[in-house]
Amino acid sequence: MGHLESLTGPRDLDPLDHDQLLALAAEIRQALISTIARTGGHLGPNLGVVELTMAIHRVFESPKDRVIFDTGHQSYVHKLLTGRAAEFDSLRQEGGLSGYPSQTESAHDIVENSHASTALSYADGLAKAYTITGEDRHVVAVIGDGALTGGMAWEALNNIAIAHDSKLVIVVNDNGRSYTPTIGGLATALTALRTNPKYEPFLDMVKRRLNAVPGVGPTAYEVLHAAKKGLKDALAPQGLFEDLGLKYVGPVDGHDLEAMEHALRQAKHFGGPVLVHAITRKGFGYQPAEDHEADQFHAPGAFDIETGEETPKGRIWTDVFSDEIVAIGERRPDVVALTAAMMHPVGLDAFQKRFPERTFDVGIAEQHAATSAAGLALGGLHPVFAVYATFLNRAFDQVLMDIALHKLGVTLVLDRSGVTGPDGASHNGMWDMSILQLVPGLRLAAPRDPARLVELLNEAITVSDAPTVVRFPKGGPPADMDAVDRIGSVDVLRADGSKDVLMVGVGAMAAVAMRAADLIAAEGIGVNVIDPRWVKPVSPDLVALAAEHSLVVHIEDNGVQGGSGAALMQELAAQGVQRPIRLHGIPQEFLEHAERGAILERIGLTPQAIARDTLAAFSAL
Amino acid sequence: MGHLESLTGPRDLDPLDHDQLLALAAEIRQALISTIARTGGHLGPNLGVVELTMAIHRVFESPKDRVIFDTGHQSYVHKLLTGRAAEFDSLRQEGGLSGYPSQTESAHDIVENSHASTALSYADGLAKAYTITGEDRHVVAVIGDGALTGGMAWEALNNIAIAHDSKLVIVVNDNGRSYTPTIGGLATALTALRTNPKYEPFLDMVKRRLNAVPGVGPTAYEVLHAAKKGLKDALAPQGLFEDLGLKYVGPVDGHDLEAMEHALRQAKHFGGPVLVHAITRKGFGYQPAEDHEADQFHAPGAFDIETGEETPKGRIWTDVFSDEIVAIGERRPDVVALTAAMMHPVGLDAFQKRFPERTFDVGIAEQHAATSAAGLALGGLHPVFAVYATFLNRAFDQVLMDIALHKLGVTLVLDRSGVTGPDGASHNGMWDMSILQLVPGLRLAAPRDPARLVELLNEAITVSDAPTVVRFPKGGPPADMDAVDRIGSVDVLRADGSKDVLMVGVGAMAAVAMRAADLIAAEGIGVNVIDPRWVKPVSPDLVALAAEHSLVVHIEDNGVQGGSGAALMQELAAQGVQRPIRLHGIPQEFLEHAERGAILERIGLTPQAIARDTLAAFSAL
Repeated sequence: MGHLESLTGPRDLDPLDHDQLLALAAEIRQALISTIARTGGHLGPNLGVVELTMAIHRVFESPKDRVIFDTGHQSYVHKLLTGRAAEFDSLRQEGGLSGYPSQTESAHDIVENSHASTALSYADGLAKAYTITGEDRHVVAVIGDGALTGGMAWEALNNIAIAHDSKLVIVVNDNGRSYTPTIGGLATALTALRTNPKYEPFLDMVKRRLNAVPGVGPTAYEVLHAAKKGLKDALAPQGLFEDLGLKYVGPVDGHDLEAMEHALRQAKHFGGPVLVHAITRKGFGYQPAEDHEADQFHAPGAFDIETGEETPKGRIWTDVFSDEIVAIGERRPDVVALTAAMMHPVGLDAFQKRFPERTFDVGIAEQHAATSAAGLALGGLHPVFAVYATFLNRAFDQVLMDIALHKLGVTLVLDRSGVTGPDGASHNGMWDMSILQLVPGLRLAAPRDPARLVELLNEAITVSDAPTVVRFPKGGPPADMDAVDRIGSVDVLRADGSKDVLMVGVGAMAAVAMRAADLIAAEGIGVNVIDPRWVKPVSPDLVALAAEHSLVVHIEDNGVQGGSGAALMQELAAQGVQRPIRLHGIPQEFLEHAERGAILERIGLTPQAIARDTLAAFSAL
Repeated sequence: MGHLESLTGPRDLDPLDHDQLLALAAEIRQALISTIARTGGHLGPNLGVVELTMAIHRVFESPKDRVIFDTGHQSYVHKLLTGRAAEFDSLRQEGGLSGYPSQTESAHDIVENSHASTALSYADGLAKAYTITGEDRHVVAVIGDGALTGGMAWEALNNIAIAHDSKLVIVVNDNGRSYTPTIGGLATALTALRTNPKYEPFLDMVKRRLNAVPGVGPTAYEVLHAAKKGLKDALAPQGLFEDLGLKYVGPVDGHDLEAMEHALRQAKHFGGPVLVHAITRKGFGYQPAEDHEADQFHAPGAFDIETGEETPKGRIWTDVFSDEIVAIGERRPDVVALTAAMMHPVGLDAFQKRFPERTFDVGIAEQHAATSAAGLALGGLHPVFAVYATFLNRAFDQVLMDIALHKLGVTLVLDRSGVTGPDGASHNGMWDMSILQLVPGLRLAAPRDPARLVELLNEAITVSDAPTVVRFPKGGPPADMDAVDRIGSVDVLRADGSKDVLMVGVGAMAAVAMRAADLIAAEGIGVNVIDPRWVKPVSPDLVALAAEHSLVVHIEDNGVQGGSGAALMQELAAQGVQRPIRLHGIPQEFLEHAERGAILERIGLTPQAIARDTLAAFSAL
C-alpha cells in the first residue's frame, strides 16, 4: 500500500499533488472494500464520499474546524484520513473501531450520531456558539439528500438561513438515494438543480476522467476548466435554497476533487452559512456496488470481493414478516403499508411489488409516517408501519397524540428490537417497550418465534380502535416452540405442577427463559415458564399466575427501566399482590458496540446468569 | 343577534348573499369576543380565520369533505358554523365545548389535535385513503405559517407533492406569526410571495373595504376585480412550493370572502394537491387584539371587552423562572436560552430583552431546539431550553441520542407539567417524568415552591456532563415551604419520629402530601413527609428512608405508569428492599378537559383521597 497507512492526520494531505491524491483515493476505496468484505458495514455510502471527504479535510482544519457527518455511517473515509487507517480492520468488532463517529476514538469525531437528519441542528448550535464566544472555527455538516427528507433537517435549514454570522458550510451529498431512491418533492427540487444543462456535460467529462488510469489523468488546464464550469453558478442562490435565503454553491461533481475543493474554499471564505451541493454516486468505483440495484450495497454483510456475492444469511425475522404481510395483503384489501425510507431493510419490498398502490415510502420521516398512518386509518384503511424499533422514538408524540388519542387502528411493526450489536448504542431497540407502556389503549405483542409472529401480526391487524405493536429482534429467529397450554392469552411453555418460580420470557427471551429453567430445575426447584404474547396491557391471567408462585422472574430484551417487567410489577402492586419479582432486561445505559451474543453475555441476559440470580433470590426467600 | 344562532350547519351558509355573509362575519367576531372575554381562550387566531373558515364551508361539503385544522385552537369559527353556536358560551368549561376539535362533539371534527404541524400528515393519509377506496371526498387542511416551521409539515409537503391523485387542498393561513412573528428562512420565503408587487395594492383596497360600514360595501364589480387581481397567479407555481412540485394559488386576502371562495373553488376543481396561500391578520377586527404587540391576544384569560385589559392573574411559576433565568444570565455569560416559538408563554421574553444575542427562537421545532442545544453545549455554552412539558414529547429521541448519549450539559425547563386542565387531553404535561426516566444520565428536579425553583434551576445549570430537567406546573405556585431537615439531597418537610408512613411528595404534590399527612396523623398514625427535590436518579437516601418505614406513599402529578413512583419502586426491588408502596399519580389515560382542580378531584390527587387510601393500606399491613 502507499500513503494511507502512513497518514497521521488530515494535514498529511496538504503536500500531496494531484496524482498522489488520486492514488490515495484509489487506496481508500481498496481499504473500504477489503475490510467491509470481511466485517460487513456501510460500503455504498462510503464509496460515494471518498473525494468529498478528502476535499473537506484539505480545505478545513479539523479538529479546530468541526466536521459533522449526518447519519454517521458515512464517516469511514473520515476515519481513514484522521489517523485510524492502521486500526481500520477492527471495524465494528468488539473493542475495535465503531461503525459511527466516536468521541472516544478521535478528537476529529464530534458527534456519535446514527439517527438521521441531526447534523444541521448540531452544526447550527455549534456555529452559533462560536459566534457568541468569538472563536474562529468553521463548522462543516455533511448531509445526504435522503436525510434532508427528515423534518429535523427542515427545522434546521429554517434557522440556519437567518443565522447570518454563522461560519457554517452545509455539504449536501446528493446521490439521489437514502437506502433506495429519495422520494418526494425534495427529490424533484434537487433534480431540477442537478439537471441544470450547464452541469451535465461537465459531469460526463469528469466521469471519463475519473475512470481513466491514474497517472494518465487530465492536464491542469482541463481540471481548472472543469472546476470553472462546475462552479459557474457559485454563490448564485438557486431554487429551494434561495427561497429560504440560503447561499448556494453548485452543483459540483462530488467525485472531482479539485472542483470540490474549489467550491469548499469559496464557501469557507464567504463568512456566512453556505450550502454546497455535491453530486455523488453511491457505490462509486466498485462495479458490484454500482450495479447493485436494490441499494448499491448500502450495508452488506461479509461478501466476496470479486463477485459481490454476500455470504448467505439464512432466513431472518424480517423474512417471516415480509411473507406474512403479503399474505395478509391478499386477504385484506384495506391493509396498506408504510416505510420511512427502508423498504428492503424492513421487508416491505415484496408487499410493494405485489401492491404498489397500497405501499408508501415517506422518506426518512417517522413523524409523518405515524400521522399519515393515522390519516389512512381515519379514511377506513388499516395501515401497517414497519420501522426499526430505535427509530420509533422519533414518532413517540405522533403515536401518542395522533394515533392513540384518536383510537385508530394502526399497526406498528418494530424490527431490530432489543440488542442489535455491531451498529452501536443508538441502534439498539431498547426503548420501545418502555415508551409504548405510556400510550393509553395501545396493545403490544412480542412473538417468541416465527409461528407466533404470524399469529400475533394477524391478531394485531384485527384491532381497529387502538394502535397495536408487534416487535421482534434482529437476525434469525429460533425454531418454533409450541406451547403446552394456553391460559387466556398467555402461552404456557413449561409446566411442572410446582408453585416455586414463574419465569416470564418476553418475545425472543422465551428461549432464554426455557434454558434458564432447565438449569434451575436441575437444582431441584420447580419452574414454570410462560410467554405472555401480548405484553401490554398486562394480562389478568398473568397477574393471577404470578400471585400463585413464590418468586416471579421476568426477562425482556428492552431497557429494564419502565419496561414490560416494570409494568407487571406496577400492576401487581396496584392489585395488592405482594410477590418478590426479579426483573432482567437491558441495563438503562448506552451499550458499546459488539456482537449481539457478546453484549447479552456482558449484560447478563443469558440462561446461566439468570439461573444464578434466580437460585440466589429463591434461596433468600 | 341575526343568523348565527339559527345556523344548523354549513349548508345554511349557501343561500346567504354578500351582505348577509358580511353581517354574519361581524356576528361571529362579536360571539368570539364576548365569549372569550369571559372564558378565556384562543382569541387572536380565531379572529383571523373568520372569512377563511366561512369560505371553506361554502365551497366544500363538510363532513363529506374533511376539514382539518392544524393546532386545533383555530377551530372556534368552524364550531360556530357547524351547529354549535348555541353552546358556544360553554367553551372550555367542564362538560362544555372543547377548545379544540372534538370527535364526540361533531361529525365535522376529524382530529382532536393540539400539537402543531400535524394537519398535513393527517390530510395526506386521508386523501390517499380516498384515492384507494375511490370515495369522492376532498380533504382540506388549514395550517398556519408558524406551524409550517415544524419538521412534520416539511415531511408531509415532501410527500403530498408527489401524491398526484390526492384531492387535497392545503390552506396556508399566513399571518406572519406563531405566538410571535414566525422566524426563519420560511418566513423569508413567504414574505417573498406576500410582497409580490401585484398583491400589495390589492390588499390595501380590500382592507379599506373591510373597514367600511357593512351594507355600504363595494360593488360587485369591485369585488370581482379584486378577486381577479388577487388570483392572477392562480395555479401558477411559485417559489418554495413550486420547487417541491406543488401547485400554488395566491396570495389571496384571507379576509376577502369572495377572493377566498374563488381561490378555493379553483383548488377544488384542480384534481390534485393544491396549496392556497391566504394572508390574514391575527386579531383582525378587534382593535385591542390588533394593537396587542406581544401576541395579538393569542390566548388571553378573561378580559374587559372595552379596554382589552386582562383580569390580573398574579404571579405564576413562569414568572419565577423568568426572573431567575435573567439573574443567572447576568452571572453566567455562557448561559443561552432557546424557545420553540413560545418566547412569552415560557417566560423567556425578559431574558431575550436583556440578552438578545444569547436567545434563540427556533420556530415550532422542538427537535431542532434539542439538537441545536446539543450543538451549543458542544461549543462550550450552557443552553436552557424552556418548553411546555407536553411538547417535549416531540424531542424525546433528540434528548436521548443527541444530548444524553453525548453527555452534554443542557438544561430543559418544563413549564405546564402535570394536569393543566381546560386545554384538554393533549396539553396535560403527564408524560415527561416517565419518558425521561429512560434517558441514561439525565437528572430531573421537581421544585415544590418558588424558592426551590430558584435553587434547583441553579443546581441544574452547574451540571455540565449530562442533561438536567426542571419541571413545574401551570398557574400560581404555593407559598414557600421550608424544610425541617435535609438528608443528602432530600428535603424533610415533616418529621414526627415515627416509622409508620413515609410520604414522598414530588414537586407541587409536596403541598398535597403535607395536607394528607395532617389527615392521617389525626387518626393516630405517624407520618413523615419528604420532597426528593431531584427525582432522577433515585436518591440512595430516599431508598434508605423508605426501608425504615412500614408503608411508602408516593405522589406525583405525572402519569402513574413508569413515573417517578415507579422508578422508586423499581429501585427498591433492585436493592432487595421489600416495602409496600402506594403510587398516586395521573391515571394512564387521556383526560377530558376541565379546571385543574376539578380534574385533580376526579382522579383522586387530593389530600382527602390520598389520606383515605393510605389509612386503608396501613390498616391492611
